[in-house]
Amino acid sequence: MLPDSGSEARFSSLFDVIRRRRSVRRFEKGRTVARGTLERIAEAARWAPTGANTQCFDLVIVDDPEMRDRVLEVFLRQSNRLIAHVKGFPAVKKTYLANTVAILIVLGDPRWKASFPNATDSEWEDEYRANNENILLASIGAVIQNVQLAVTACGLTSAWLSGGGEATTNRELAELLGYPDSLVAYGTIPIGYPEKDVTYRWRRPLAQIVHWNRYDPARYRPDGLIAHYVAKLRPFAMYRGDEDMEAWDDIDEKTGEWREAYTGPTPNPSGRIE
Amino acid sequence: MLPDSGSEARFSSLFDVIRRRRSVRRFEKGRTVARGTLERIAEAARWAPTGANTQCFDLVIVDDPEMRDRVLEVFLRQSNRLIAHVKGFPAVKKTYLANTVAILIVLGDPRWKASFPNATDSEWEDEYRANNENILLASIGAVIQNVQLAVTACGLTSAWLSGGGEATTNRELAELLGYPDSLVAYGTIPIGYPEKDVTYRWRRPLAQIVHWNRYDPARYRPDGLIAHYVAKLRPFAMYRGDEDMEAWDDIDEKTGEWREAYTGPTPNPSGRIE
Repeated sequence: MLPDSGSEARFSSLFDVIRRRRSVRRFEKGRTVARGTLERIAEAARWAPTGANTQCFDLVIVDDPEMRDRVLEVFLRQSNRLIAHVKGFPAVKKTYLANTVAILIVLGDPRWKASFPNATDSEWEDEYRANNENILLASIGAVIQNVQLAVTACGLTSAWLSGGGEATTNRELAELLGYPDSLVAYGTIPIGYPEKDVTYRWRRPLAQIVHWNRYDPARYRPDGLIAHYVAKLRPFAMYRGDEDMEAWDDIDEKTGEWREAYTGPTPNPSGRIE
Repeated sequence: MLPDSGSEARFSSLFDVIRRRRSVRRFEKGRTVARGTLERIAEAARWAPTGANTQCFDLVIVDDPEMRDRVLEVFLRQSNRLIAHVKGFPAVKKTYLANTVAILIVLGDPRWKASFPNATDSEWEDEYRANNENILLASIGAVIQNVQLAVTACGLTSAWLSGGGEATTNRELAELLGYPDSLVAYGTIPIGYPEKDVTYRWRRPLAQIVHWNRYDPARYRPDGLIAHYVAKLRPFAMYRGDEDMEAWDDIDEKTGEWREAYTGPTPNPSGRIE
């Protein structure tokens, strides 16, 4: 089925890693890892695509236990701010960071936006300026994904914390780690040995994601579904170990009137868009 | 060296795909690909991590030649706007899109930012609102990277166009493809058979990227280097086929006073940060 015979094996091997990568927040205690392994992970990051090949990122890899504990303290304060000021968000206590073998921090450098398309006449400034931010962040996302895939392939596991992108947390990390706070810790990736076997996470059906040649409005997720996700489903969709919600005993209770919209091919059968 | 024996083979296989993925803009003419292959690529996207597991994206896959030609026309207009309003940017003419077997468009859905941390008291609004944008875009970047890696593993090749994130281009794509323009085409990924062997692209040395336990200011890239990159080096760094600039016959001419800064471990030997 694939274009050449070697592709079959290559795709399977890649897909296995892609599927086993997931955010894990329980690591085996007291383990360590060789720097050579962390360097391989960094080498995978190095080959990520970035806008205009700017390589607009740096990696701070914390493998010294004392420094790791200080990073942990920054994230405990970050969690406490979430609890105080983002009531209802299903945050996980960050104490598990104590069991990491390393914490890899991806710093993005917004100065490189100068290298993305910028209008040379003023009436087009907005058109390009807004997209510069998009290009920077999507590049950082590609770097983070390479890191997470490499971690998985190396027999380790990771999570992806976005809290370093909050201004207060970034200032604290910048002071602790000694980077100028014009750089931003968009991704913090705790790395460790998984405490137990990897489970999967909920994914909506492929038929809901793919539109052939033309967008199908019957697959638009209505505003009401998004509101339901935020108010009711989020912690379960984030943390339960099943790809398919149909495996949940309490699926009706959890999904309510949106059951078909979450599990079927067409979350918006009327095709009407608000 | 790696944690378990299977890891060595898994990492090598992944790293080979990561290293061979790169933006290609010349495809073999007149080829087609089976939908099954495109579905596998979509399945790889499906497993990308997204903030709060919102799966805040849709994929429009254009494999109908007529529709592909209309997408091509949108990007020819996008290129023309770049030439007119972003003078000096080394854009590549988009006519090569005619030789793709498919164009995969990753639509991001900003409404899902409602599911990321949002302040419940007003004085913290800015702290979290700015980071919501980061989380959305970094998630989209991870989706795009999964797509590009899957494309590579399948024996195909791709590029990554960010122009769909420009408001005018996105409106034209939305009208053509029938999606509501509240969604944004952050990534457009032309897919095809590479016309010739893959070459690499310039990467700065690993030693420049990795900071152990503490940020090393000697590796900060000075503002002057960024200005030099934008003014002089960009087209060569983007399009020449060598990982290492030392392979360039005209390296001195191209890098000028910044040669060491681009190729050595410490672009900022004084450690002073502006």
